[in-house]
Amino acid sequence: MASNGAQSRFDPTFTQRVVDTMGPNMTQRNREVMSALLRHLHDFAREVELTVDEWMTGVHFINAVGQISTKTRNEAHRVSDVLGLESLVDEIANKIVAEGDVDPTSSSILGPFWSPNAPFRENGGSIIQNPNPDGRVALMHGTITDLLTGKPIAGAVFDIWQASANGKYDFQDPENQAPNNLRGKFRADADGRYWFYCYHPTAYSLPTDGPAYSLLSLMDRHPMRPAHIHIMHRADGRLTKGVQVTHPEYKGCTTQLYPKDDPWLATDTVFAVKDDLVIDFKPLEGDDKATLDLEYNVVLAPKGYKGKQFGP
Amino acid sequence: MASNGAQSRFDPTFTQRVVDTMGPNMTQRNREVMSALLRHLHDFAREVELTVDEWMTGVHFINAVGQISTKTRNEAHRVSDVLGLESLVDEIANKIVAEGDVDPTSSSILGPFWSPNAPFRENGGSIIQNPNPDGRVALMHGTITDLLTGKPIAGAVFDIWQASANGKYDFQDPENQAPNNLRGKFRADADGRYWFYCYHPTAYSLPTDGPAYSLLSLMDRHPMRPAHIHIMHRADGRLTKGVQVTHPEYKGCTTQLYPKDDPWLATDTVFAVKDDLVIDFKPLEGDDKATLDLEYNVVLAPKGYKGKQFGP
Repeated sequence: MASNGAQSRFDPTFTQRVVDTMGPNMTQRNREVMSALLRHLHDFAREVELTVDEWMTGVHFINAVGQISTKTRNEAHRVSDVLGLESLVDEIANKIVAEGDVDPTSSSILGPFWSPNAPFRENGGSIIQNPNPDGRVALMHGTITDLLTGKPIAGAVFDIWQASANGKYDFQDPENQAPNNLRGKFRADADGRYWFYCYHPTAYSLPTDGPAYSLLSLMDRHPMRPAHIHIMHRADGRLTKGVQVTHPEYKGCTTQLYPKDDPWLATDTVFAVKDDLVIDFKPLEGDDKATLDLEYNVVLAPKGYKGKQFGP
Repeated sequence: MASNGAQSRFDPTFTQRVVDTMGPNMTQRNREVMSALLRHLHDFAREVELTVDEWMTGVHFINAVGQISTKTRNEAHRVSDVLGLESLVDEIANKIVAEGDVDPTSSSILGPFWSPNAPFRENGGSIIQNPNPDGRVALMHGTITDLLTGKPIAGAVFDIWQASANGKYDFQDPENQAPNNLRGKFRADADGRYWFYCYHPTAYSLPTDGPAYSLLSLMDRHPMRPAHIHIMHRADGRLTKGVQVTHPEYKGCTTQLYPKDDPWLATDTVFAVKDDLVIDFKPLEGDDKATLDLEYNVVLAPKGYKGKQFGP
């Protein structure tokens, strides 16, 4: 890394001149974001004394990212994930440190595979529509409660999506999976309980045919995500058609759950693992539909709850 | 901008954890560049508390940059130019502060329109192959000399390319311009002199149909480049076929020249103007081929010359 002494040979006014070309007709927020982007981009280039060839490699990389992207493949999203950016943005948006002893459920990244079209299913149902011979069925169940009162949140929505035992989502595997296989929304009952059948999740690799994988290779990193289940919780009344909702609105939560024995937990290629999202599957007896049991309880904060405040 | 206090609510170990996933099998230089990139990217996001919507806007932007790029359109190059990055990389690569009173000719960015195929032409010839009715012809001439000795550099190559009076290069305007219109290479004579006919340059706008222009619009910036002539100097013997070369090798120089009365000098949209590159066209009498005169002298540093050293 160049020392500050070495950096002094560069024009010290350059970055400010670039910032100052921004005109008056932009929002204060856009000015703040673009000014910081320009300063960090230039500081990065000066700090490493970026060469012409390295810059041009970056130019070609960015063009290649867009060129491989399609309606169902978002490579820029994936690149930002392997750089940790989506996880960081998720933390910035959602981190709440509770004032009491109980923390609300941590959020984690949405990823590129959520669908707005997942159907509502009944508690006790299954999201497994196209069974995979390697799939291990689990009964997943738990309660959804209020962070402050500890009371159940009747009618809260639990949205789940996961890859099949071959590591692929329905979008990626139309030959074996019908749309909405391994997707579903469930509504908590009067006691805040939900229950349904899903798979023990399977670890998988990010696609290895594009720029995101080239970048991982450059960094000598593996492309594996630990096995995980995607979940999203809402309790805002929007999706509780025909059901009387008596609770206040809650802050929604999008997150992921990880089996505690997964070998990729510490090096998740998109940096989306958090301690309270690590779960423990147990053997299940007496249920002819499943061999595993997973209890998972959700804690939601009321909308507008800020938790402990930091800073000035 | 968030204060340091507000930033403390984010996990202080996150960025280091991402950096630490890089494996042992990468070059030291790639590790240095990627570590700095990750730190600046994350610091930027935390500093502005980047929102999910802003991040996703950036993701869509990067995909769009690649999608509009073709063999003859490099939008990522253009975006990096409007952010000042190519100019900065050029400064990092080429800045020399001389130890004596004379500085070598400043470099400036190559831009996307140089061609390796420009033909050699004779001194006294013209690069104007397809005249434009609005073009103002200039006799451009000068000497190419050695920074340290002041002596002429016989056989030095002067490569020039410029847009026509409609603001377009041959690549962009095949209906009006044959390949290599307004391009040519000239070789300095025994006294280091070169001379040829070209146009007074014309200001032009970057393309307004892509993401680079969207970004300029967001920043309330214009898309104009000041009028300029691209030039590239070499004196390394490589391109002096059949000519006896007695001088040592010189550090090549790629740069641009700008008429002093151009209204866009101070706000060049790619930040490529430097004081010693601003030139003065004068009226020319007694030459039936041109109405303007441009004298421009080039000073090249010997290869390996470092100039004043900075830093520890």
